[in-house]
Amino acid sequence: MDQAKTSYERFLSTAGKSVTANAIRKLTPLITRPDIISFAAGAPSPEVFPLEELSEIAAKLIKDKGRYCLQYGPTRGNAKLLNQVGEYMQRRGIPVCGPLEMVITTGSQQGLDLAARVLLDPGDVALVELPSYVGGTIALHNSGAVLRGVRQDASGIIIEDLLETIERTRSEGRKVKCLYTIPNFQNPSGVTLAEARRRDLARAAEEYDFLIIEDDPYYELFFDDGVAGVPPLAALAPSHVIHISSFSKVLAPGLRAAWLWAPEPIASKIELMKEGADLSSSQLDMAIVSEAIESGLLQHRLPQLREFYSLRCKTMVDALKGNAREGSRWTTPRGGFFVLMEGPREFDASAFLPKAIEAGVAYVPGQPFYVDSSGANTLRLAFSKETPEVITTGIERLCKAMK
Amino acid sequence: MDQAKTSYERFLSTAGKSVTANAIRKLTPLITRPDIISFAAGAPSPEVFPLEELSEIAAKLIKDKGRYCLQYGPTRGNAKLLNQVGEYMQRRGIPVCGPLEMVITTGSQQGLDLAARVLLDPGDVALVELPSYVGGTIALHNSGAVLRGVRQDASGIIIEDLLETIERTRSEGRKVKCLYTIPNFQNPSGVTLAEARRRDLARAAEEYDFLIIEDDPYYELFFDDGVAGVPPLAALAPSHVIHISSFSKVLAPGLRAAWLWAPEPIASKIELMKEGADLSSSQLDMAIVSEAIESGLLQHRLPQLREFYSLRCKTMVDALKGNAREGSRWTTPRGGFFVLMEGPREFDASAFLPKAIEAGVAYVPGQPFYVDSSGANTLRLAFSKETPEVITTGIERLCKAMK
Repeated sequence: MDQAKTSYERFLSTAGKSVTANAIRKLTPLITRPDIISFAAGAPSPEVFPLEELSEIAAKLIKDKGRYCLQYGPTRGNAKLLNQVGEYMQRRGIPVCGPLEMVITTGSQQGLDLAARVLLDPGDVALVELPSYVGGTIALHNSGAVLRGVRQDASGIIIEDLLETIERTRSEGRKVKCLYTIPNFQNPSGVTLAEARRRDLARAAEEYDFLIIEDDPYYELFFDDGVAGVPPLAALAPSHVIHISSFSKVLAPGLRAAWLWAPEPIASKIELMKEGADLSSSQLDMAIVSEAIESGLLQHRLPQLREFYSLRCKTMVDALKGNAREGSRWTTPRGGFFVLMEGPREFDASAFLPKAIEAGVAYVPGQPFYVDSSGANTLRLAFSKETPEVITTGIERLCKAMK
Repeated sequence: MDQAKTSYERFLSTAGKSVTANAIRKLTPLITRPDIISFAAGAPSPEVFPLEELSEIAAKLIKDKGRYCLQYGPTRGNAKLLNQVGEYMQRRGIPVCGPLEMVITTGSQQGLDLAARVLLDPGDVALVELPSYVGGTIALHNSGAVLRGVRQDASGIIIEDLLETIERTRSEGRKVKCLYTIPNFQNPSGVTLAEARRRDLARAAEEYDFLIIEDDPYYELFFDDGVAGVPPLAALAPSHVIHISSFSKVLAPGLRAAWLWAPEPIASKIELMKEGADLSSSQLDMAIVSEAIESGLLQHRLPQLREFYSLRCKTMVDALKGNAREGSRWTTPRGGFFVLMEGPREFDASAFLPKAIEAGVAYVPGQPFYVDSSGANTLRLAFSKETPEVITTGIERLCKAMK
């Protein structure tokens, strides 16, 4: 077989880029070893999956409505679920969110991929946060985008750096096509984009005419009410935002049902692209999620989930305070699943990982999350999966090994 | 909003191509009207969905194994299901089919899309059958392929036309990159690719070094044993075939779980592309399908399904024989869901559709299935969804209206 290389194959063969996916992939056998305390996987805790309730919902749906929820269905998704997520968007302050603006996707990941495919041509410039979620950068890469990083601090994207990057791109005769952001409790940094900066970013998108891809899977998982009221970017610049959110973190990620909101002309192109991508998401998953909303199951669980993850977050941050080696720093998340730790400048989180594993603890090295290959001294620590007791032990092991 | 158009937007705005998807989309409100007998939707009959059994399977899986089958999982898919479909492929005569060659996809449609994205660059030449499945041609289009048609007769692809098209492409200094075929009971024609022609096609793929995308969703739904033993292309030219198949037609299409077999280097690229496309397919759907195989449910139903669709096919063909207007022809499928009818040369199936609807019967005009825009006088008639009595009435209505 001697096919000439396609652009995708050439992309895969450029080491610097394939590192991103592979660095995390290689961890899989380690993070599932029972003797290892794992802060690696960014997954919700299966302890909080409502198994009894979902089992009943699934059984009843298939029995009573299986002729519909096991059959082909519209590409946009289950009509009832589209209305339900439309209501969510309305409550989040987005003005127009009828069925013409909404698409159900096979997880948020598909929303990112479809948005990138519709918006970008090879060579287009897309901005991403430093650091940013690997799945988002992969989706942008797969559409051939040229990625440029924008620095963050404890309040999210630094607006001066954003404007400078936009101007630098313009001075090269190129245009920034889109910016990818996770404004709440970001993966991997745990950082939340401050309200004033959201307004500045929204204004920049309108002024420089680029689209914001707002990825907001952790929206409901806030730990203090102060952050709950901060408006999404889609409410601040509705003509310049694609908003993506998911049930993976508040119900179960194995059900691949997320949603995407976009201005109608973009949503209709995304629908057409989705038709070619997978015809529709799982009809059964969509029906189950819709019923979990209708029955109140989803809504009633939220306070308990916030408390569950908040306790784990506090436990991790406290353990870091008590044990971390001098010269280390970490973020203090107001929600979500992740703390980003920064070792001393000379620390190499990738090189150190085997020693951490030997000490019985795993994490994801931060560098793959930085498209400019910085962040070698950072570690992503997920507090979502282990119990508080185990988190304390794990951080003690990690900090001891780092000393 | 004044974004410069991306190549995808330019693609959508070229009328000749967007027609394909839209022609069928516009039918949706009609084919669901209860007073219309519909031969339009190419969907399995919900009458044969095993609702009781699947309801029990789903309930038990979530209750007992929900911590796994509602959690994130590997991109390649459920490990047990990968082994099960590997065994299928082995029984179909494919030599190497371990977990390195297999990927579970979100329906066959995703397999087509991922294959096209990995194999093709914009401007690459892809060959498709005349006519061919719209979802396949959309996936190829979405990767920017230039599509060229190869004519079929009652035995499938005409090898002389294939070779001529390849040579013509070469004489332009271009290379045929792949060929997309549905060898068994094709959608929309119902035609099966004869064994001798499969061998010729496999030889051509090796000689001219192009990949065959073999889409085989109807494999198990044969109506006579003569066709059951015909080898898949993947068994004849394993280094030059991507084989795609699905549970949609033999279990339920709302469960989005299909599979893809490819030589290992291609399968691993498809896995990486899938990671960016949707992380994984529905974990619950995969677990349900795996259990339906394990319990024997899937296998035991096959004889009954073959009989079910065979009776409907025979009923439709008999009704056409008894009622069709002179100058009409139709295919005689040996399996699957579809008959392709050809009216007299001057007949326009798209223009006629409103009259057919008025007479209480719907179909899909054949032209969107022909990438060379021929086939204006053809109609796709799906016999899969209506009962035999209703099929007879529907064909009577159609033929009367055509006279």
